[in-house]
Amino acid sequence: MGIIGSTLKPFKATAFQAGKDFFDVTDADVKGNWAVFFFYPADFTFVCPTELEDLNNQYAGLKDMGVEVYAVSTDTHFSHKAWHDTSDKIGKIQYPFLGDQLHTLSNNFGVLREEMGLADRATFVVDPDGVIQIMEITCEGVGRNAGELVRKIKAAQYVRNNPGQVCPAAWEEGADTLAPSLDLVGKI
Amino acid sequence: MGIIGSTLKPFKATAFQAGKDFFDVTDADVKGNWAVFFFYPADFTFVCPTELEDLNNQYAGLKDMGVEVYAVSTDTHFSHKAWHDTSDKIGKIQYPFLGDQLHTLSNNFGVLREEMGLADRATFVVDPDGVIQIMEITCEGVGRNAGELVRKIKAAQYVRNNPGQVCPAAWEEGADTLAPSLDLVGKI
Amino acid sequence: MGIIGSTLKPFKATAFQAGKDFFDVTDADVKGNWAVFFFYPADFTFVCPTELEDLNNQYAGLKDMGVEVYAVSTDTHFSHKAWHDTSDKIGKIQYPFLGDQLHTLSNNFGVLREEMGLADRATFVVDPDGVIQIMEITCEGVGRNAGELVRKIKAAQYVRNNPGQVCPAAWEEGADTLAPSLDLVGKI
Amino acid sequence: MGIIGSTLKPFKATAFQAGKDFFDVTDADVKGNWAVFFFYPADFTFVCPTELEDLNNQYAGLKDMGVEVYAVSTDTHFSHKAWHDTSDKIGKIQYPFLGDQLHTLSNNFGVLREEMGLADRATFVVDPDGVIQIMEITCEGVGRNAGELVRKIKAAQYVRNNPGQVCPAAWEEGADTLAPSLDLVGKI
Amino acid sequence: MGIIGSTLKPFKATAFQAGKDFFDVTDADVKGNWAVFFFYPADFTFVCPTELEDLNNQYAGLKDMGVEVYAVSTDTHFSHKAWHDTSDKIGKIQYPFLGDQLHTLSNNFGVLREEMGLADRATFVVDPDGVIQIMEITCEGVGRNAGELVRKIKAAQYVRNNPGQVCPAAWEEGADTLAPSLDLVGKI
Amino acid sequence: MGIIGSTLKPFKATAFQAGKDFFDVTDADVKGNWAVFFFYPADFTFVCPTELEDLNNQYAGLKDMGVEVYAVSTDTHFSHKAWHDTSDKIGKIQYPFLGDQLHTLSNNFGVLREEMGLADRATFVVDPDGVIQIMEITCEGVGRNAGELVRKIKAAQYVRNNPGQVCPAAWEEGADTLAPSLDLVGKI
Amino acid sequence: MGIIGSTLKPFKATAFQAGKDFFDVTDADVKGNWAVFFFYPADFTFVCPTELEDLNNQYAGLKDMGVEVYAVSTDTHFSHKAWHDTSDKIGKIQYPFLGDQLHTLSNNFGVLREEMGLADRATFVVDPDGVIQIMEITCEGVGRNAGELVRKIKAAQYVRNNPGQVCPAAWEEGADTLAPSLDLVGKI
Amino acid sequence: MGIIGSTLKPFKATAFQAGKDFFDVTDADVKGNWAVFFFYPADFTFVCPTELEDLNNQYAGLKDMGVEVYAVSTDTHFSHKAWHDTSDKIGKIQYPFLGDQLHTLSNNFGVLREEMGLADRATFVVDPDGVIQIMEITCEGVGRNAGELVRKIKAAQYVRNNPGQVCPAAWEEGADTLAPSLDLVGKI
Amino acid sequence: MGIIGSTLKPFKATAFQAGKDFFDVTDADVKGNWAVFFFYPADFTFVCPTELEDLNNQYAGLKDMGVEVYAVSTDTHFSHKAWHDTSDKIGKIQYPFLGDQLHTLSNNFGVLREEMGLADRATFVVDPDGVIQIMEITCEGVGRNAGELVRKIKAAQYVRNNPGQVCPAAWEEGADTLAPSLDLVGKI
Amino acid sequence: MGIIGSTLKPFKATAFQAGKDFFDVTDADVKGNWAVFFFYPADFTFVCPTELEDLNNQYAGLKDMGVEVYAVSTDTHFSHKAWHDTSDKIGKIQYPFLGDQLHTLSNNFGVLREEMGLADRATFVVDPDGVIQIMEITCEGVGRNAGELVRKIKAAQYVRNNPGQVCPAAWEEGADTLAPSLDLVGKI
Repeated sequence: MGIIGSTLKPFKATAFQAGKDFFDVTDADVKGNWAVFFFYPADFTFVCPTELEDLNNQYAGLKDMGVEVYAVSTDTHFSHKAWHDTSDKIGKIQYPFLGDQLHTLSNNFGVLREEMGLADRATFVVDPDGVIQIMEITCEGVGRNAGELVRKIKAAQYVRNNPGQVCPAAWEEGADTLAPSLDLVGKI
Repeated sequence: MGIIGSTLKPFKATAFQAGKDFFDVTDADVKGNWAVFFFYPADFTFVCPTELEDLNNQYAGLKDMGVEVYAVSTDTHFSHKAWHDTSDKIGKIQYPFLGDQLHTLSNNFGVLREEMGLADRATFVVDPDGVIQIMEITCEGVGRNAGELVRKIKAAQYVRNNPGQVCPAAWEEGADTLAPSLDLVGKI
Repeated sequence: MGIIGSTLKPFKATAFQAGKDFFDVTDADVKGNWAVFFFYPADFTFVCPTELEDLNNQYAGLKDMGVEVYAVSTDTHFSHKAWHDTSDKIGKIQYPFLGDQLHTLSNNFGVLREEMGLADRATFVVDPDGVIQIMEITCEGVGRNAGELVRKIKAAQYVRNNPGQVCPAAWEEGADTLAPSLDLVGKI
Repeated sequence: MGIIGSTLKPFKATAFQAGKDFFDVTDADVKGNWAVFFFYPADFTFVCPTELEDLNNQYAGLKDMGVEVYAVSTDTHFSHKAWHDTSDKIGKIQYPFLGDQLHTLSNNFGVLREEMGLADRATFVVDPDGVIQIMEITCEGVGRNAGELVRKIKAAQYVRNNPGQVCPAAWEEGADTLAPSLDLVGKI
Repeated sequence: MGIIGSTLKPFKATAFQAGKDFFDVTDADVKGNWAVFFFYPADFTFVCPTELEDLNNQYAGLKDMGVEVYAVSTDTHFSHKAWHDTSDKIGKIQYPFLGDQLHTLSNNFGVLREEMGLADRATFVVDPDGVIQIMEITCEGVGRNAGELVRKIKAAQYVRNNPGQVCPAAWEEGADTLAPSLDLVGKI
Repeated sequence: MGIIGSTLKPFKATAFQAGKDFFDVTDADVKGNWAVFFFYPADFTFVCPTELEDLNNQYAGLKDMGVEVYAVSTDTHFSHKAWHDTSDKIGKIQYPFLGDQLHTLSNNFGVLREEMGLADRATFVVDPDGVIQIMEITCEGVGRNAGELVRKIKAAQYVRNNPGQVCPAAWEEGADTLAPSLDLVGKI
Repeated sequence: MGIIGSTLKPFKATAFQAGKDFFDVTDADVKGNWAVFFFYPADFTFVCPTELEDLNNQYAGLKDMGVEVYAVSTDTHFSHKAWHDTSDKIGKIQYPFLGDQLHTLSNNFGVLREEMGLADRATFVVDPDGVIQIMEITCEGVGRNAGELVRKIKAAQYVRNNPGQVCPAAWEEGADTLAPSLDLVGKI
Repeated sequence: MGIIGSTLKPFKATAFQAGKDFFDVTDADVKGNWAVFFFYPADFTFVCPTELEDLNNQYAGLKDMGVEVYAVSTDTHFSHKAWHDTSDKIGKIQYPFLGDQLHTLSNNFGVLREEMGLADRATFVVDPDGVIQIMEITCEGVGRNAGELVRKIKAAQYVRNNPGQVCPAAWEEGADTLAPSLDLVGKI
Repeated sequence: MGIIGSTLKPFKATAFQAGKDFFDVTDADVKGNWAVFFFYPADFTFVCPTELEDLNNQYAGLKDMGVEVYAVSTDTHFSHKAWHDTSDKIGKIQYPFLGDQLHTLSNNFGVLREEMGLADRATFVVDPDGVIQIMEITCEGVGRNAGELVRKIKAAQYVRNNPGQVCPAAWEEGADTLAPSLDLVGKI
Repeated sequence: MGIIGSTLKPFKATAFQAGKDFFDVTDADVKGNWAVFFFYPADFTFVCPTELEDLNNQYAGLKDMGVEVYAVSTDTHFSHKAWHDTSDKIGKIQYPFLGDQLHTLSNNFGVLREEMGLADRATFVVDPDGVIQIMEITCEGVGRNAGELVRKIKAAQYVRNNPGQVCPAAWEEGADTLAPSLDLVGKI
C-alpha cells in the first residue's frame, strides 16, 4: 500500500519547544488534529534554517486552521534546544522539534537516508484521523515552499469538510470547486 | 532506501500522444533528459482534467528547460486516445499519455491504490541519470500546482549545474543561493 | 480441478449500465440466477463492439430465460460510461459493464493475458448455484456467436430442469433428448 | 498464463483409426497443421456418439481446410477399436481416437474430472505452431455443435492468413472483416 | 511395511456384473468375506480372456469357499459391459468387474504401470478382516494359474481356521500339516 | 513404479553353499543369468525346510534351464552353515544361502516384516538383464509350490525367446501360445 | 549425554533359555534387579563361546548377587536354540539369550556395527533403576574377563548400598573403601 | 557408528608432566604409537588418586609395550601441576596429564557429564593408526583395574601382530589363541 | 541490548569459602544485595593472586557497604579449595570462590575466551535488583585496581539513593554532584 | 568471542576537531597507533562535559604515549561543532569527536542503548594492531576516571613492550612487575 491513505505508525519522541520543558509526543497525541511532520537532515545546517523560518512564518495561520507542526531530524532534543539557544533564526521558531535519534519516525515515513543516518527533506500532512493525506520530498539543496503547503492543507480541509466537492488544480481558498457526478464523467 | 535518490526501474508502456501513432516508451527512452511522471487516477474523471490542463500550460516552458512530461493512469492507450478525441480540455493536451493497465509504473513508483486498481495523484521528477529527485502526492480531491512544480525543477536544475550551491526555502529563479561551508555550521 | 463445475470466486466490481448510477456487483449478487460473464480486451477497440452488439440483440431473450449478462474488461467504469456516451454501437447496449481494473475477475476466471493487462475474449455461463457450466474462449480477431451461446444455455437449462435427460450434438430447443440407461451402453 | 496462446504440452498416445494399425501420436506429430482435440467422457456412452457423428460429418471439409481431428477419452486404444467394431454410429467415424488412460492429455488441457477419472466435454483448436487458439467446454448433458466449430476455425485461419484483419461477431466465411487502425479507436 | 499383512486401503469403484445394474463397491463391502482382486491390463486384449475364463471355471468353487472375486482393470464400467456384450468368452464370466479409470485400486495395491496407465497382471487374496494374505504378479505374456490360486486360498483358510498348524510346501487339501513347537526348532 | 519391471538394486551378501568356502554375492554376480530369490523367515523353523526341500528337488532342472537359486533369510552365513550341518533336510540343499542380517535384500525387495526383523515368504524371478519378472508372496503358514514356480519361469523364458507370443492361463510347456494382433482385439 | 548414567531405552525381544519355552523380555522386565547385557557378534562363531562359557561360570554367583545376565546377538531366538542344541559349550549355558534380529538393542546401546549388521563385543551393567552404571567394549578378537566384571559389579553394589563410600582402584570385596569429605580434598 | 573402530578426532591440549615444561599434545602426536586416554572427574578428589597411582604402577611396563598414557580431566594444566606439587600420591605420577578445560577431549570421546562439566571415569585404548580398540567406563565411586587394562592391551597387540588369531575369554599372555576357520563354525 | 542495564541470567555454581563447607550459589541468592563478580583466568596463576589480595583488602569495607564479592574462574570448587590450602596469599582470602567448570557464568557475562576455556580478567557490579551497572575488562597481564572499583560502586550507590543527582568525572565520596535540568542543557 | 581480544570492526565516520575542517575517520586510520574510543550519550548534556574535560586534561600526556582519543556520540559532526562553539568547557577540548548518527560505532562496540538511540558511557582501548585490550562501562550518572584509564594504558603498553612480564593489581608506572614461569605456578 502507498503512504498516502495509510495511518500514522506508533512512535514516541521527546520534543523541545521554546518556553517549555522537554515533553514526549506520541502518535496518540497527534491524532485529533491536523498535523504537519516537517523532516530536515540535521541541526546546525544550511538550507534547513531558511525552510524552518519560512514555515514559522505560516505557523500562526496554521494554528488558526487547527494544524500543529512538528519539525523532525535525527538529532536529540538536547541538540534541538542548543540550536534554538544559539541561533537567531532558530531561536524564533515557535513550533516543537522532535528528537529522532532512534530513527523511528524517519523509518516510519520511509525517509531515512540509510547510508547517512539523516532524514530526507520531506513533508507529510496528517488528518485528524491520523491518515496521511499529502506528502512531498525534495532532493538535497532544493528548499520547500511553506505557502504552497498551506494551500494544499486548505484544499484538503475543504474536501474533508465538504464531502462531494473536489478542488481543481492550483486551487486557492475561495475559488470554485467541482462536484463530481455521473453526468460529469467524460464531460470535463 | 527511500524513493528519492533511487533510480527509475525498468518498464515498457504504450503511449498515446496527439498527432502521432501509438508508440512504446521504456525507461531507456526516459534517461538522458529530465522527465516528469504525472500520475492521476482515471481517464474521464474530475480533478484530473484541470490538473492535466494546468500542466499543459507549462509544457512549452518545460520542453525549453529540457523536461519531458508523461501523464500516467491505469487506463489503456485506447482509452487515452478516446478521452483525447471526446474531451475539449484533454483534446488540447500536447504531452504523451502512458497506458499502465499492467500497473507496472504505478507499482514501480509505489503509488498504486491496491484496493482500487488506480494510481495516486502523484508527481515524480527524474533527472537525466534516471534518478528520482523530487516527488509529491496529494490525496483524492486536492489538485496539484504546476507552477510550483516548475519552481522546484528549476531549483533542482540549478543545484545540479552549480555544485556547492543550495537553494533556500521558496527560492525563485534568479534569487540568491547559499554556499555551505564549515564556518556556516550553526551560524544560520 | 477444471473450471467447469467450479464455483464462482468472490469478487466486487463497480458496474456501469445505461440509465443507472454506478453500482457495485459481487459474487453474492450473481448467485440465484443464471449469468453470462462476457470478457473482452479493451474499451474503444475493434471486434469488441460487434460482439457486444451481437450479444445485445439476444439480451431481451436472455432476460426472459432468467439470464443476466455482464460485460467485463480491465477498463474502469468511468471508461465504460465514456465509451457508451461516445459510441453509437455501444450506446445501445442495455446490459451492465463491470470495471475490472483490479484484474480480480480476469484472474478468477483464468483469462488475464498477463503480459498485456487485458482479458481474453472469453465467455462463461454460471448457473443459479454459482457453478460454471459452459465456457468458450477465442483468440484475438475471432468474434464469438451470441446465437450459439443462447443455444447452449437453453440446453443447460433443459438438463438442469429435466434430470435424467441429455441433449445430443447441435440440439435445438424442442428437439429430442436422450435418457441414458444401462441398456443403452454400447448401443448408440 | 491462460490456456489460449499457450503451446501444446508434450504427450504421447496410441491412436486407433479405422482401417489402420494402431499408431502413436505425439505433440510433434500434431504441429505443422491445424488440429482439433475433441475430448469426451467415455466410450460406449450416450451424448458422445451424437457429438462424434456430428463432427464426423464435418471431417471431410476440415481435412480440406488442413485440419486434423483427434477424439480423446481416458479409454484405451483397445477400447476405442472395440467400440468402433461394435457400434454402427462409431463404426462410421473416420478420424483417429487417442487412448488417454494415462490422463496426460486430459491433464495437459486441464479438463480431467479428477474425482471421476473422465475428461470434460471439451474442444481445443491448435494452430500449425502448436498454439491453442480456441477452446470450448460444455457441462455434462449439453452437446456441442460441429458447425459452429468449423465457423470459428475458418475465422481463425482467415485472421492468421490476413494479418491486420479481424472477424466481427458471428462472422461467416465471405462476410466483411475489419482492419483495426488508430483512426478506428473509439469509432466503432 | 510390506503389502502382505497390510489392510485394504479405502476405495470406491463402479462395478459391472452380468445380469445386474451397475453398482458401487467399496472396501467396506469387501470386508467380512474372503476376496480375490484379479488385476489385468486392459479390456479387449489377449492373455486376459484366457486368464479370466480360467478363473471363472473356479468361481463356483470359490463362492462355496466363501470367496468373492473382483476382476479389475483401468477401463470404465461402460467398457466392461461392452466387452461382456460383445465377447463370447467374457460374456460367460459371472463375477463382477470393477472400473478403475481413477487408478485408485491399481495404486492402492502398487500395481499401476505408471508409464502406460494399465495395471499389472496381479492377484491379491484378502481375508475377512481386510488383510492381504497372498499375492502374485507375472510379467506381460505369462498367464496365471487359477488352480494354484485355489490351492493357496485353501491353505490360507486352513491356517486361519486351525491356529497352530502350518501347511508345508505344495500342500494340497487333506494332506498333513505341521504343528510348530519349541521342540521342532532346528529339527526339521 | 511397481516391483515388476524394476531392476535389481545393488547389494552385497556373504553366501554359504555346501562344499564351498564362504563367498560374496553381489547384484553384478546375479546379472547375466536367470535367478530366483527365495526368501523365508528364519533358519531352524518349520514350513521353511519343506519349501526349501521342495525347491531343491527342482534345482537340477532349473540349473539346466540356466536359472540360479538364492535362498535368503535375515540370518548370518554362520547360521546358514550351522543349519546345514545339523539338519538332515537342509544338509541336502545344493543351492546357496545368502546372509541378510543387514536387511539389505529384504528391504530392496520390499519384504522385510519391520516389526519382526524377518523376511516374508516371498519369491522373485529375475531375468538375465536383472529385471524382476515374476513375484509371489504367501502369508505365514502357507507353503509355496516349486512346480508352479518352474511353470512360470518356463513361460517367461518362452516369451523372452519368442517375441510376439504370449502364454495363456495355466500354460504348460509345449502347449499353444497366442500371437496378439490388431485383428484379435475384442475378438477373444 | 554419555551412556553412563542414562536409562535403559524401551525394547522387546524374544528370549531362549535352556529348559524353558521361548519368552519375551522387555525393559520393564529388566528393571527392579541388576542386569548384565552381554553383546557378541554372532552365533556359531569363535571367541564368543569362550566368553559365554567364562561368563556362565560366574552365573550362579551373579544370581546370588541379584544380577540377571542377558546374552545378545543379532541372531534370532531360533538360532540361539539351535546353537544351544548343537554345541557342547553353549549347551551348558544357563542364562537367557535375546534375539536382536531387529537391531533394537544393538542400536539402543550404540554397539551395532552398521556395515555388518552385527553387534560389538560389549558389556553393560544396569542397576535396579534401569540406569547404566558400567560398560566395556573390546575389539574383534579380544575376549572379555568375567571375573573382572564381577569385581566391578560388586563395587557398584557396594557404592549403591553404602552412600558416602567410594571404592579405590582395583578394589576387591572386603577391602577398605574411602569416605569423601571436604577435609580430604587435595589430601589424597 | 560406534566408538570402537572410529578414529581419534582432532584435539590440542596443554600437558603437564613431572620434570618437564608445559607442552602441547595433539591427535597427530598420539598417532604412531599405542595410547591410553585415562579420564577422571577432577583434580584433588578421592577415587582418582588411587586409580592414577594404580595405573602409574603399570606405566613402566606399558612404556616397554610401546604404550603412552594420558590422564585427562577438565582441570587446567596449572591445576594439574599444583596437584602434583602438593599431593604425595600424585607427586609420584610419571605420565603426562592433559588440561581439558575446553571440554574438547571429553566431548570427542563422549564422556562429558554435561550437567557437571566433569568427565566420566573412562578409559580408551587407541592403536598406532589412531583407531579406538578398547573402552571402559565405570560409574562414580567404582575404581578401575590397571592390571586388567594391561591384559586387554596385550591381547589387542597380539591380535594386531598375528592376523588370523583371536584371544579367548580372560586370555593371559602366553596362553593359547584360536584360529577361526570355516570348519570351526558351529563347532566350538 | 548491551550488558549494562541487563539482568543477571540464571546460574547455579558450587562455592568454596574459607571456613565453610562447600555450598551452592544461584542468581536468586545474589539478588537483594549489591554484588561484585570478579572473574580471573585460572587458579594457581600469576597476576590473579595480587588482584585477589588487592580486592580482599577492600572486602571488609565492601561488606559494610552491603556488597558481596564472588571470585569466579573455570576451575572447580575442589581446585579453589586446594589453592586456598596451599597458597599463603590465597589462604587469606575471605570472600567466596565459584567453580565455573561448566562455563555458565563466563558465558552469561560474555567473558569466556572460547579458544582457551578460561575467563577474561573482568569485573561486574550488580545492583540489588540483579541489574548490571558497571563493568570492566583488562587484557592479560594488566591488573585491576580495587580502590577504583570501590569508588565507582560508591558513586552508583549514591545515584541509586539520590534520584536526580549525577556524579561528575572522578567523583569521590563527599564531593559535589550535579542535578540535571533543562536549563543546564548546553550550559556546562 | 568476547570483545577483549577482538579486532576493530570496519567503520567510517565524520569527525570534528577544533581548528580543522571536517574529516573522515575509518578503522584503517585508527590502526597503527594506540587509540581510546570514549563514548558518551549526547552533546549538550550533563555528566559528559566533566568527563570530557577530565579526559582532555590527560590528552597531552596520552599523545606523548602515542595514544589518540576519539570522543563518540550518536550526534552529528554538525552538532559536535556547534557544541564546541557554544560551550566553554567543550570549547577547550582538543581531541576529535566522531559523529555516529548511523549508530555504526555504537553497535560495533555493543554499547547502543537501543530503546534510546544513545550510547553507553563506555571506554575502549585499542592497540596498534586494532585489537581491543581494555574496556569499561559505567551506568548513567557515574562518571569515569581519566587517571585510572591512563594507568591501565601504561600497564598495557608495558606488557606489550616487555613480553614475559605482567603487571600486578593497581600497578603504577615504575613499580615491580612479575615474570610468570612454570616454577611460579601455585607459588604466589
